[in-house]
This record gives sequence, structure tokens and C-alpha cells, in this order.
Amino acid sequence: MAINLSVVGEKSKEVEHPYGWKDVVLYHLGIGAKASELHYVYEGVKGGLKVIPTFSVIPSLEAVAHVSGKLGANPMMILHGEQGITIFKPIPMKGVFKTTAEVKGIYDKVKGALVQVETRTVDENGEELFSNYIGIFCRGEGGFGGEKQPDAKPVEPPAGKAPDFTGSYAVSEDQTALYRLSGDLNPLHIDPNFAKIGGFSRPILHGLCTYGIVCKTLIKGLCEDDPTRVKEYRARFSKPVMPGETITTKAWKLEDGFYAIEAETENNQIINQAYFKFTA
Amino acid sequence: MAINLSVVGEKSKEVEHPYGWKDVVLYHLGIGAKASELHYVYEGVKGGLKVIPTFSVIPSLEAVAHVSGKLGANPMMILHGEQGITIFKPIPMKGVFKTTAEVKGIYDKVKGALVQVETRTVDENGEELFSNYIGIFCRGEGGFGGEKQPDAKPVEPPAGKAPDFTGSYAVSEDQTALYRLSGDLNPLHIDPNFAKIGGFSRPILHGLCTYGIVCKTLIKGLCEDDPTRVKEYRARFSKPVMPGETITTKAWKLEDGFYAIEAETENNQIINQAYFKFTA
Repeated sequence: MAINLSVVGEKSKEVEHPYGWKDVVLYHLGIGAKASELHYVYEGVKGGLKVIPTFSVIPSLEAVAHVSGKLGANPMMILHGEQGITIFKPIPMKGVFKTTAEVKGIYDKVKGALVQVETRTVDENGEELFSNYIGIFCRGEGGFGGEKQPDAKPVEPPAGKAPDFTGSYAVSEDQTALYRLSGDLNPLHIDPNFAKIGGFSRPILHGLCTYGIVCKTLIKGLCEDDPTRVKEYRARFSKPVMPGETITTKAWKLEDGFYAIEAETENNQIINQAYFKFTA
Repeated sequence: MAINLSVVGEKSKEVEHPYGWKDVVLYHLGIGAKASELHYVYEGVKGGLKVIPTFSVIPSLEAVAHVSGKLGANPMMILHGEQGITIFKPIPMKGVFKTTAEVKGIYDKVKGALVQVETRTVDENGEELFSNYIGIFCRGEGGFGGEKQPDAKPVEPPAGKAPDFTGSYAVSEDQTALYRLSGDLNPLHIDPNFAKIGGFSRPILHGLCTYGIVCKTLIKGLCEDDPTRVKEYRARFSKPVMPGETITTKAWKLEDGFYAIEAETENNQIINQAYFKFTA
């Protein structure tokens, strides 16, 4: 199967995604919110429900599907390789997302192809809410003689320095079953047979679930638990997380409101070349 | 506040409740289904998703709300005291429930009033799916000189006999936050302040969540994990379950496909005068 390079520049139609507080709470529970975190799980909480900004990936993926389907890649061989969000204003607890996706480039990574997609989301009044960067890694689709990814200096922690913040989260064995109800129904994350076809011993956690868990940990550790302070967050998924593992997030301060990030489980480094920006 | 006795005989309008597989899976996760129980959590499972029949309480409660609102009882003082379901045919994984509720009686239990409601649910073709019996206990509303509850011999385990089946389930600290997304948004189960007003040290588990957990345990233990075999299931909630407790379900065989049931936590007996009938 060869990847279809002509989709570069392809734009999706505007995809409408209405949502309410139940969708927000379901997403929060999917990335590990606790019953005691009322600002994440209880619609009647004083001051109102606060939305963790990685919720922005949900409508984004929906729009991405409109262009990624044209890649011609085997869905079982696709991995979410990189993700970035830029938040322009706090996400309301209900509303309508209107999202457009565009394929920005396809690069030859030898072991696979890296497809870069950008999405932009506005609210029902056309006001810009957030943008997403999605890097899709198509395993087995490399070596087509295509362009290399342009050099860009990734954000890395200062060499040899201990992290300024560390926080952990234990992924439950059932996390994938809950997370997928927020929209990513890829059977790779629930069906043991599909996981085997994809080359895994058992279903793996969604990369974007990991992404949300790490964001939530950082908000608690660096933003006094206030998700509306997040401005930008980017991560590279170096290995998948398996249900039952514990995710440890590490953050190194580069400047006020700008941290280099890594995350690992007891078995693997799972996120690197990552950063987190917020209103300090 | 005095309870309004004139609602006896009151019928709700027919309440329509459309649902899909995501609602079924969300309910199953709320009562403790695991990611590995594919027949409960994965819409693409071979043979199709199977619906745990206590899902029938969801549309039922919605219809009950149309009549119980007229009771004039303090919502913080209302407890779900008893629940029964009778299943006429296996519940499909998607469809439309059409449910009517009727207040059958209000009895003086001295410490409170017991309000008995029955609901009947048909599918979109008018075919009868299931009926529910709901016993609502209104604390502090007793002693109004009303009728005593008619004598009926409750089903009890044979005295001094060890149970024929025992199964356990550990309720997570976050179970209420997930279960409530299936429809019962009473803040008593999520808001510490409301729980205190209701006389509890912290939010309690929904009685109907306990009800579902025990049913799931019985299906696994007695019905070879096949929920379509359940015919009838009735329980009295003697004490609420607190998040973090472990529910142990005990079953005594009375005849083929008919068991007396009790359930307890490490701290309290929580279900008694209960029974479970299934296709043996």
C-alpha cells in the first residue's frame, strides 16, 4: 500500500461538533479526573465546570478524519505520533465547535511516513478558540523517497538537571474503554485481536489519552489546578502506554510559564521533545 | 413539609428515551464493567453487545420523575428504598424506550413514607420490553396516620445455610461521578455539601448503581455471564454504599433459576429481602 502524497494542501469541510457538560465530564473521567475534583466532574460546582484544554483534540480528530481517510494508509498501522494545541480563549462548558483540518505536509521518516495536519476551531460566533497540530505516523509507509522533515530544534530539558516538578498517574486497566467513548473508536484500543494485527500484545492506551493525562498533571502541578491558564502544549509520543502502567510526568522550567516536558512509565519513555506554556 | 397523598393513581405521560450503544457502554462502565468484558464494552464484539437488564432502570427513573415531583417531599431526604425489574425480552443495544409511570400506593412507615411506583416500558413498535417497581422512601415523612404497607412475605435465604454463590466487587472512589452520567444527577452522589445536608458524611453511591453491580455479579456467577437470561430481580436497599467499599453478593438457591439474594459491604448489610430469577 502506498501513501497518497497528493493530499498535501487538502482541506476538510467545516465540521460542526455540538457538545455539552456531560461530554466534558466524560472526557475528564476518561483522562483520570476524580470524583473529588468537582471543578472537572460536577456541573453544579461553585464557579462552574472548568474544561481541560486537551478536550480540544476531540473535535480536531473528527475533522482530521475527513482528510486522513484519503491517505490510503492501513488504519491498523497508523499511530498518533505528535500533538500540539494552542488555546486562544478558555473552552466553554457547552457550545458548538466548528473545525477545519488541512494537511500541511508528508515526510519520509524511513520506517514510516509522517503526515502533518493542522486544524483550527471557532465557536458558534466564529471566534477562534484553539488550533491543533497533529502528527500522524504511518508505519511501513516510509522510504518512498520523499522529503525529510525540516530541521527544527526540539524543546529539550536542560542536560543533567533534575526536573522542577514531577507528578504521577496510575492508568487503570479499564481506561481505554472509558476514554474511547469521547470519540476515538479505533479498535486497536479495545479489541485484543485488532491489537495483535497492529503488532501489540494487547490493546494500547490512546496517545491522546496519555496527552490529556499529562496535561491534567501539569495543570495541577504548575497552574494551581486552573486549566484556563494553559496557552500551548506540544508532545511527541515516543512509545505507547499500556493499561495498568503508571505515567510519571516531569517538567523543567525554562522561563516563567514555559517548561520542557517528558513523561515515562515504569517501562518506557513515552513523551519527549515536549513543552508546556501557560499564564504564569 | 407534608407528603401529597393525592398522587396515588397518578400516571405520567409516555416518556420517550432514545438510546444507542454508547449509552449502554457508559452504563455498563458505571456499574463496573471491565475493558476485558468485551460483550459489555465493545460495540464491535462478535455476537454483539449484550445489555445488562438493570439498564432498564434508566428510562424508568426518568418517567418516575414525572410523578415523584408531585409528592412534595424534600429531594435531599428521598432515598431509593426498593427496586424490582421484570424483563420480557432481551434489551436491544439501541432503540427507543417508551415508558409510563404510575403511583400505586403511599404507606406510613413511621420514620418515613414509602411511595410505590410502577413503570412499564415498550419499544418503538409497542412491544413490551420490561416493567419496573420502584419503592421511594421519604425520610421524615412518616407518622401521617396513613395505611401500613400490606403484608407480603419477603424472600429470605434459608436460615443458617451458607450461600451457594458469593462474588465481590470493589467500588471505586470515582464510581458515582461516572454512574451519574447515565442520568441520575442527584447532587447527593457528588456534592459533599449536599451529602451533609442529606445527613451523610460524604456523597453516597446511587442505590441503583449498587443494584446494577449486584446484578452483574449474579449474571457472571449464575448465568454463565449471559445477561439475556435474567427474568426478574428485586432488592431492598437496607443501607447505602460508600465509594471505596467492597460489595459482596451472596445467593442461595431456592429452586432452579430462583435464588434468594443478600449483599453487604465490609461495614453494612446493604441489600436484603431480595431475589433473582433467570432462565436456568
